[in-house]
Amino acid sequence: MTHFPQLRDLGEQALLKRVQDFCPPLAIGDDGAVIDPGAGQELVVTTDLLVEGVHFNDLTAAPADVGWRAAAANLSDLAAMGAAPLGITVGLALPGDRSLFWVEEVYRGLRACLDPWQAPILGGDLSRSPVAILAITALGTVSPGQALRRSSAQPGDAIVVTGAHGASKAGLELLLRPEQQAQAPPELSQNWIRAHRRPQPRLDVTALLREFGWARAAGMDSSDGLADAVLQLCRASGVGARITSLPLPAGLKDWVGPEQARQWALYGGEDFELALCLPRGEAEILTATLGDGAAIIGETTTEPTVYLELAPGLKESLSFESGFQHFHPKT
Amino acid sequence: MTHFPQLRDLGEQALLKRVQDFCPPLAIGDDGAVIDPGAGQELVVTTDLLVEGVHFNDLTAAPADVGWRAAAANLSDLAAMGAAPLGITVGLALPGDRSLFWVEEVYRGLRACLDPWQAPILGGDLSRSPVAILAITALGTVSPGQALRRSSAQPGDAIVVTGAHGASKAGLELLLRPEQQAQAPPELSQNWIRAHRRPQPRLDVTALLREFGWARAAGMDSSDGLADAVLQLCRASGVGARITSLPLPAGLKDWVGPEQARQWALYGGEDFELALCLPRGEAEILTATLGDGAAIIGETTTEPTVYLELAPGLKESLSFESGFQHFHPKT
Repeated sequence: MTHFPQLRDLGEQALLKRVQDFCPPLAIGDDGAVIDPGAGQELVVTTDLLVEGVHFNDLTAAPADVGWRAAAANLSDLAAMGAAPLGITVGLALPGDRSLFWVEEVYRGLRACLDPWQAPILGGDLSRSPVAILAITALGTVSPGQALRRSSAQPGDAIVVTGAHGASKAGLELLLRPEQQAQAPPELSQNWIRAHRRPQPRLDVTALLREFGWARAAGMDSSDGLADAVLQLCRASGVGARITSLPLPAGLKDWVGPEQARQWALYGGEDFELALCLPRGEAEILTATLGDGAAIIGETTTEPTVYLELAPGLKESLSFESGFQHFHPKT
Repeated sequence: MTHFPQLRDLGEQALLKRVQDFCPPLAIGDDGAVIDPGAGQELVVTTDLLVEGVHFNDLTAAPADVGWRAAAANLSDLAAMGAAPLGITVGLALPGDRSLFWVEEVYRGLRACLDPWQAPILGGDLSRSPVAILAITALGTVSPGQALRRSSAQPGDAIVVTGAHGASKAGLELLLRPEQQAQAPPELSQNWIRAHRRPQPRLDVTALLREFGWARAAGMDSSDGLADAVLQLCRASGVGARITSLPLPAGLKDWVGPEQARQWALYGGEDFELALCLPRGEAEILTATLGDGAAIIGETTTEPTVYLELAPGLKESLSFESGFQHFHPKT
């Protein structure tokens, strides 16, 4: 890409001007952006850092994917709170030898993810830096008292996931070890890679919950893995859980075997689905309405533990300690 | 500081727990914080990146100063918009060998600056990174239509600054070249160093403007230098300006001479005062009320240029090109 100018040749004002093309006029020309949150709405705010070499790299994500994933992670947090998006701010720290093309691609990726939700880029900041970092803050609104909390699950709630889990991790593995692509079914490989590069924030689910008026649901997103999501919901609500099924992406078990597929579903992370606890009747309506991998995976209990019981009588407890590490079955 | 644990020994959960001590409960335990913006208010959002080695370093700022300055820069942007602060989010990217003490000091500095304005830390994100970066987003509110814009100056307005300019740059010079401290008056040196390390966001001015009901004022902060602020206001409003005085910190001219003092006032930056354009009667009331360096420094004109006329007939035009670089007098 040597025919594209580097940032150090461009100057801050010229870079700013290019980046402002991705923002609406309200975000430009003052010390801050002014937006109307809507009458009587509560505000939801969430923020995420993405560091090159830690959260993304050239091998697994093109610059447009970096932008998409940064926007998706933040919109997913809004979805997990039951919020409708107002927009995001973008802080971008960049080495001087980065190309303008890379920066514009990141912004194109951000916008591609944001545009379907009418969420504008509400301004931001640019800085040079030895390492590329995106710092995104997302703003959303909820009607007063309608935010989805992690702490509002009750014993006997159905636990719903809004889609299959493990596809993002499968895509990441294929990107990190391309030689594995020869062993994976080609059309499924592309799905999994897409799941990793272009995760969909589940704001559609949030809109549905609002439409149904189901404010009692507890929820969070599964960005750190499904096991972590269920454990966090249970800890915040003071309940236990029994998980009796794990919705896996089509073909994953055949490719990597049932144990690996299960590990990726529980601990792989970055599927950006929602885990919700709600009364069984509502859960059944929701999963039927969503389709496409949405499922009731178990129920909350009065017990102090969270455990898997994928076959009758075969119990394995889950704990935070096993997250991100190897899966230690405890029978 | 080897007796303080390093972040890599601590683990993410333990670090998170320490950092959460600096946040109110509303910011903890969900995917986002929920806040009430107040009935019928518009929202102001602004964001800033601070990169170690670019915006701060060990030599010129203790970690608590880094936190203070990060908060002050963002609160200053809210002040420049006429907004009352709701709070900030804090993204913190950190090398693994950074001490926990450093991190806690940054948060203490943030809180020390925020607390007088009842502005909570509304959550954030932590990540490891090869370089330390703070990414702050500040949220504030204004009554609909009451935001201070850069574009609302009219020819014949008085141009007000809310305090003297050049002290922050003087403090920075003393910190970068400590041998100069021997030549500077000790009590003034300490003031200037304090001006650099602990700038005061002028939310008090904003509160006063709201109290007076003066929504027609144009304003921005002088974080990038007073010359830049006046030029930006004039460009956004389509007016020119004649600057006839520059309020300097006491003793600065005696220490570095009138020309250097003037350069620092115009181009030094980071004084975090406000530059405001408003009708002369209001300007006189405002400067009299504020005292302490607040002054009318000139007026807006129908001419296309911004110029200094510090002595009658001796005109020098200002332009963006001369900002941050040497001052090129054009007679």
